[in-house]
Amino acid sequence: MIHDAASVMQACDRLAAISARSDGIERVYLSDEHARCHALVAPWFEAAGLMTWQDAAGNLCGRMEGASDGLPAVMLGSHLDTVPCAGRYDGILGVMIALAVVERFKAARHTLPFALEVVGFGDEEGVRFGSTLLGSQAIAGGWNARWWGLEDAEGITLTEAFTSFGLVPERIAEAARRPDALVAYLEAHIEQGPYLEAQARPLGVVTAIAGARRFDVECAGHAGHAGTTPMTMRQDALCAASEAVLAIENAARKHGCVATVGKLDTVAGAVNVVPGLVRFSVDIRAQDDALRDQAWAEITAAFESIGAARRVAFSNRETHCAAAVGCAPELQSAIARGIRSVTGEKEPLRLVSGAGHDAMAMANLTDVGMLFLRCAGGISHHPDESVLEEDVALAIDAMVATVSALAETHKVQIETATV
Amino acid sequence: MIHDAASVMQACDRLAAISARSDGIERVYLSDEHARCHALVAPWFEAAGLMTWQDAAGNLCGRMEGASDGLPAVMLGSHLDTVPCAGRYDGILGVMIALAVVERFKAARHTLPFALEVVGFGDEEGVRFGSTLLGSQAIAGGWNARWWGLEDAEGITLTEAFTSFGLVPERIAEAARRPDALVAYLEAHIEQGPYLEAQARPLGVVTAIAGARRFDVECAGHAGHAGTTPMTMRQDALCAASEAVLAIENAARKHGCVATVGKLDTVAGAVNVVPGLVRFSVDIRAQDDALRDQAWAEITAAFESIGAARRVAFSNRETHCAAAVGCAPELQSAIARGIRSVTGEKEPLRLVSGAGHDAMAMANLTDVGMLFLRCAGGISHHPDESVLEEDVALAIDAMVATVSALAETHKVQIETATV
Repeated sequence: MIHDAASVMQACDRLAAISARSDGIERVYLSDEHARCHALVAPWFEAAGLMTWQDAAGNLCGRMEGASDGLPAVMLGSHLDTVPCAGRYDGILGVMIALAVVERFKAARHTLPFALEVVGFGDEEGVRFGSTLLGSQAIAGGWNARWWGLEDAEGITLTEAFTSFGLVPERIAEAARRPDALVAYLEAHIEQGPYLEAQARPLGVVTAIAGARRFDVECAGHAGHAGTTPMTMRQDALCAASEAVLAIENAARKHGCVATVGKLDTVAGAVNVVPGLVRFSVDIRAQDDALRDQAWAEITAAFESIGAARRVAFSNRETHCAAAVGCAPELQSAIARGIRSVTGEKEPLRLVSGAGHDAMAMANLTDVGMLFLRCAGGISHHPDESVLEEDVALAIDAMVATVSALAETHKVQIETATV
Repeated sequence: MIHDAASVMQACDRLAAISARSDGIERVYLSDEHARCHALVAPWFEAAGLMTWQDAAGNLCGRMEGASDGLPAVMLGSHLDTVPCAGRYDGILGVMIALAVVERFKAARHTLPFALEVVGFGDEEGVRFGSTLLGSQAIAGGWNARWWGLEDAEGITLTEAFTSFGLVPERIAEAARRPDALVAYLEAHIEQGPYLEAQARPLGVVTAIAGARRFDVECAGHAGHAGTTPMTMRQDALCAASEAVLAIENAARKHGCVATVGKLDTVAGAVNVVPGLVRFSVDIRAQDDALRDQAWAEITAAFESIGAARRVAFSNRETHCAAAVGCAPELQSAIARGIRSVTGEKEPLRLVSGAGHDAMAMANLTDVGMLFLRCAGGISHHPDESVLEEDVALAIDAMVATVSALAETHKVQIETATV
């Protein structure tokens, strides 16, 4: 039974053993490990008092009725899949905390003006099919028919993987929930960043999930002999790209967003040749799409001026664009109240999530709110991922307080509506 | 018979047809094409009045006695091998010009106080075995026994290639010439750079061949999540490497040398990961080794300060080091006189060769001098390599004048010595 921080920590440890590899944790969508994970976790759902099922997209779901049957639900959860060589808390911790929260309401469930649901999404990381948030998109009604043709590294299509897993592709729409079936979606997650630790705070309120844009950039100069081409006559694509990398860094700093050149390569480069062609990636994220787009506009202007000065040509192609998702102000307030009640902080830290989360997909269906837990060194997607048991205890209490706060508001709303 | 610019140009065209590939010129050391090239060119040597042989290293050699038999020789030449997808003039042109020069002295050879020799080196580019100047090193006595084990792309060793070509590895020392057998080595070569064209001059005097040092540099920072790692807390190896690339460019400009980062790679980079490790190459060349070393010291100092500011660690490993080779002042003067006599220029352009040449190896044996010809756009190692026939005519005349100037000086020296 998962009822406190210690049992949550133990549950995370047990799940860490369900892995496709012996040298680390790897549990991807619709794999054997996915099935073994559900076999282990479903009884924990049941034990928390949840009616439990696997939905048409391979998400693990559970529901506990409130004051009366069939009420709209507050859904708590996160994802159960992992990246390769993952840590044991990213996603998983949020599902286990949700179970501990439900456990606390089990005895008093008849007082709740909404049902409580818990979800463990089958795919958030997108490792197997290269497209993220498949599980939450299915529930949010955002499933895209083009995805059926996606293939994994072994050429298995998503359709084939569904069938092997025992799912029926034709029934995918059954996973989608109606907006009026939900009150809100609440997710607890490790921060995966350094802010909480730096401020010595265990918990924080997420204000928004950053929107990301990604680009492939090409910088074309002119190759030349490294010995015979004078410095003044070069059209060096790498020197130009280097200025661009620094311009990108500056623009991000100036506009308060994050921008990263994660990959850069001198195409067909050789030690004795002035680079003629360089390709690099750009990933830019901000709490606010307008801010992010403004930074990108400044970056492309820098490309222009660097290109003109160095007689090289920059071109770019957008490869990804996701809008920023704001957490509902009411849910932010409720989570802040929840944190305040357990830490005594007057103003809990509010912070933006730079990483993507299931809540991004769920925001298309219902209001979303997120609570962040401090993690050591901001490390994530790595075996060194680490959280303190006392922080988990605070997170459970804060989430219970948050749900109670929502129950209060919701009761008032129901009463007001029925007056 | 090669006796003028037109016949030199035709000879270059005919040699361009001897290639291992149909989509461009490729003629590497000890290949079938190498043998076919000698079969074509040896009769041209003979026709110029040269006693002709292939030496123990696969160089094509010819000798015409001077006023008396057995005099030390002025050796003229360049190389007959090419890079893949080469132009038709790099190296080859210098050998053909040498033949045209010898042709001019054929009738009056009894007046020369030295013999004239022509050499077509078998390997300058180092394409097949990865080590350059094998042909000229053999003649200069710089053959290294370690080279015998070098393998080509198909795993054939240099020893095996010698044998297949009909050469006897054990006799390699016979290719080496004694220093007292030579007066000087003179080479005409296309500039492979833009200076002559930029100044609208057909010919130039080479003052030195730049010494090169090459390094592999590693920049180690710390990988991080592109969304959750704040800009201020990053240890971005690529941002640091970008600053380093620009510092290298600046140091080269400041010290009047050339420096190139030809290859750069974000190791295991991904679009959504802050780069933790970057590797890049540095090639730095200068007319003067001290200048080059000073620039490199400044570059490593820049690595230190960039590393300290960005909390990343730079390390480097030297992969190549060749000292600069100065052309003999007497030969520079003789070539300048030669150029002056055909162009009327008061001060012929003196310039450094950024590229390596056979003269680098030959400088260990005898004084070396080089004459550069203008080439279109500075383009070399490319099918677009191009020279003007009128420039070739001037080069032949200038080289004849140079040899005449040397003959004059040499006669005076001999007379002085015998007084």
